[in-house]
Amino acid sequence: MIDHDLAALGDAFINFVHSLALSNKTGRAAGSKVKGTLLAEALRRAELREHMPSRMTTHKLADAAEALLVYAWLNGCVTIEESVATLEENSDSIEGLTLLLKKAKSRIKLS
Amino acid sequence: MIDHDLAALGDAFINFVHSLALSNKTGRAAGSKVKGTLLAEALRRAELREHMPSRMTTHKLADAAEALLVYAWLNGCVTIEESVATLEENSDSIEGLTLLLKKAKSRIKLS
Repeated sequence: MIDHDLAALGDAFINFVHSLALSNKTGRAAGSKVKGTLLAEALRRAELREHMPSRMTTHKLADAAEALLVYAWLNGCVTIEESVATLEENSDSIEGLTLLLKKAKSRIKLS
Repeated sequence: MIDHDLAALGDAFINFVHSLALSNKTGRAAGSKVKGTLLAEALRRAELREHMPSRMTTHKLADAAEALLVYAWLNGCVTIEESVATLEENSDSIEGLTLLLKKAKSRIKLS
């Protein structure tokens, strides 16, 4: 999960998916960058923090979340449509991201 | 084409698609933000500049390109896969973007 290059691709992925979810929610096209603090908190809530080394910065935790999310998409564990729907259904961004990370976690394990 | 909100969503779209194309090309995951100057030049080469008001800044032209690209995707005129492949096949980013804009232009007209 601690792959800087994958995190960079994941950053583009999650910003796109989050922008689509926000657009659908508000009924108006929008662009949105997901903050690292939100991703790091979602990683903790998805109980993924414990799988990682101690002493990681918020930035590194956010990178891990981004890497995991795009890894799941690249491997066909989640679709863009489902990712958008998951974020859209949750009014709270952190909750939506947590749920998405949980899906990624469970499906990557199973595949 | 001059819709600021759509351009913001388009920014997330083109960064994601461009990052995927770059990742495929280099065989290594990567994130990449597409510069406005490239988008504005691609818009000119796709012969879309003449459809727009005069006295537009590079930033506004880039916005128009982003809006058009995501509009085409939202309306099913291009897929993410095709967009990535189009950018990937062209070693020059501007050429890839130009081709993608031309596809969007011709298909939106026909639909």
